[in-house]
Amino acid sequence: MELRDPDAIAKMRAGFDAQGVMKTLGAAVEAVAPGRVTLTMPFSADFTQHHGFIHAGVLTTVLDSACGFAAFTLMDPGSEVLTVEFKSSFLKPARGQSFRFVGEVLKSGRTLLFTQGTAYALDNDVQTAVSTMSATMMAVRDPKIAR
Amino acid sequence: MELRDPDAIAKMRAGFDAQGVMKTLGAAVEAVAPGRVTLTMPFSADFTQHHGFIHAGVLTTVLDSACGFAAFTLMDPGSEVLTVEFKSSFLKPARGQSFRFVGEVLKSGRTLLFTQGTAYALDNDVQTAVSTMSATMMAVRDPKIAR
Amino acid sequence: MELRDPDAIAKMRAGFDAQGVMKTLGAAVEAVAPGRVTLTMPFSADFTQHHGFIHAGVLTTVLDSACGFAAFTLMDPGSEVLTVEFKSSFLKPARGQSFRFVGEVLKSGRTLLFTQGTAYALDNDVQTAVSTMSATMMAVRDPKIAR
Amino acid sequence: MELRDPDAIAKMRAGFDAQGVMKTLGAAVEAVAPGRVTLTMPFSADFTQHHGFIHAGVLTTVLDSACGFAAFTLMDPGSEVLTVEFKSSFLKPARGQSFRFVGEVLKSGRTLLFTQGTAYALDNDVQTAVSTMSATMMAVRDPKIAR
Repeated sequence: MELRDPDAIAKMRAGFDAQGVMKTLGAAVEAVAPGRVTLTMPFSADFTQHHGFIHAGVLTTVLDSACGFAAFTLMDPGSEVLTVEFKSSFLKPARGQSFRFVGEVLKSGRTLLFTQGTAYALDNDVQTAVSTMSATMMAVRDPKIAR
Repeated sequence: MELRDPDAIAKMRAGFDAQGVMKTLGAAVEAVAPGRVTLTMPFSADFTQHHGFIHAGVLTTVLDSACGFAAFTLMDPGSEVLTVEFKSSFLKPARGQSFRFVGEVLKSGRTLLFTQGTAYALDNDVQTAVSTMSATMMAVRDPKIAR
Repeated sequence: MELRDPDAIAKMRAGFDAQGVMKTLGAAVEAVAPGRVTLTMPFSADFTQHHGFIHAGVLTTVLDSACGFAAFTLMDPGSEVLTVEFKSSFLKPARGQSFRFVGEVLKSGRTLLFTQGTAYALDNDVQTAVSTMSATMMAVRDPKIAR
Repeated sequence: MELRDPDAIAKMRAGFDAQGVMKTLGAAVEAVAPGRVTLTMPFSADFTQHHGFIHAGVLTTVLDSACGFAAFTLMDPGSEVLTVEFKSSFLKPARGQSFRFVGEVLKSGRTLLFTQGTAYALDNDVQTAVSTMSATMMAVRDPKIAR
């Protein structure tokens, strides 16, 4: 996939750094390519559900950022990214010491981008898919008013 | 809707208190009825996306708990609740000083429960729907192995 | 909800009549209001799954049209409607002699419209909700190229 | 993936033949393997939306059967398959002379099976992905009452 904005990847990293929640979760950028972003996050008891696993919504939060930023890398200069909607399925309990999140663009349009993602748990170095995402992202000029 | 477990609501509150992420987010139970749970959360810059609004995934985290615990109140004694999947749509930016999350059961089966939810932003006392959820919940005996 | 195009409802009916699949399914318009469309369909063994109930995808077909045309009624003149994505949940077997489909707009933007719908089975005059839909619709000028 | 029922593939083909709607749509089984089913369908004006393309719901109908039967091949003897829910995204207009639908199992549990699918248009021998599906399937003993 080709970049429409030569600075898109640098801007994507700045956008990631501007997300307060990513800092709070301890999430980091592992890799970026046009239309594909990989993030990581360590386990923390601060983000668990009642069985001690990472909460489904927290997995979804990082996966949404992975998919959203993957879409952002393919947008026109001056665009910002908004999540229109997503669906996530929870395949297995999120048991592990850390987690990897891969988001990628399936189809890139000027206004809408279709993305998909997978969250993996790393448990004693074994990587297992624990949830999936299908998300629609929108390129907007003024995210405070548009939609 | 009727309770199958007379202690379901007390157990639901204990389950909520056992979710590390709810404490981290500052979320609280506002109201519980059979098949319906209302949660609240204050705004915090710790949980924002890059435009300074609450991250879509964070809204989804609390909405998932509202829907999941609404389902839990209708389950057989000894059951625990797992999220099978959810879809969320993001209607508006989550601009506000606090947020309300209403989850309710649409159809209750012995194994699967269909739920729906809405997240509201409260901005200077005006309440606006900002996201919706459609979620499938599962009643399981041993959440660590089942699914 | 207000019409942006005074001819929107007449155009919506013409659009419905132009859908070959609605004729094939025997579907009809029961009611139209701004942002809300109700369709009906009789049972036919031609559209069943392997237990003799109407196939989930067929319910979804008519519900998608109900939601899409509900969105269409609120669009600017010259717009056409495309389905971006939908999710459907199947609450009960679609047992009945006929079916009713209600689609309505939850949030109307210039480009994207969030809709929701419910399919009902009518079995000996008892109406039961059998499936739900959450769908994103897009207003486009040239549906053959846009997206 | 392994079969739990040695007759599962033969039963899957019988189940497909028992779906009235597949006959009506002219759909056929192209290939079956454990956890993976490929179906095909020719274009017909009987199943179009208002721009003359195959209706999104019709693509979804065949894709749901592909995913459901893929799940069925992995179920215990005596089980039947029900669709719990699905989400479909529509990447491109369904322009073509025929269509191919691939459904496959992502994660197989005793009760729930997570599946995904892609619908392709074949236009002058060029195959293009036009829609995707993420679906949850349920193995049930008595589909008329269970859920």
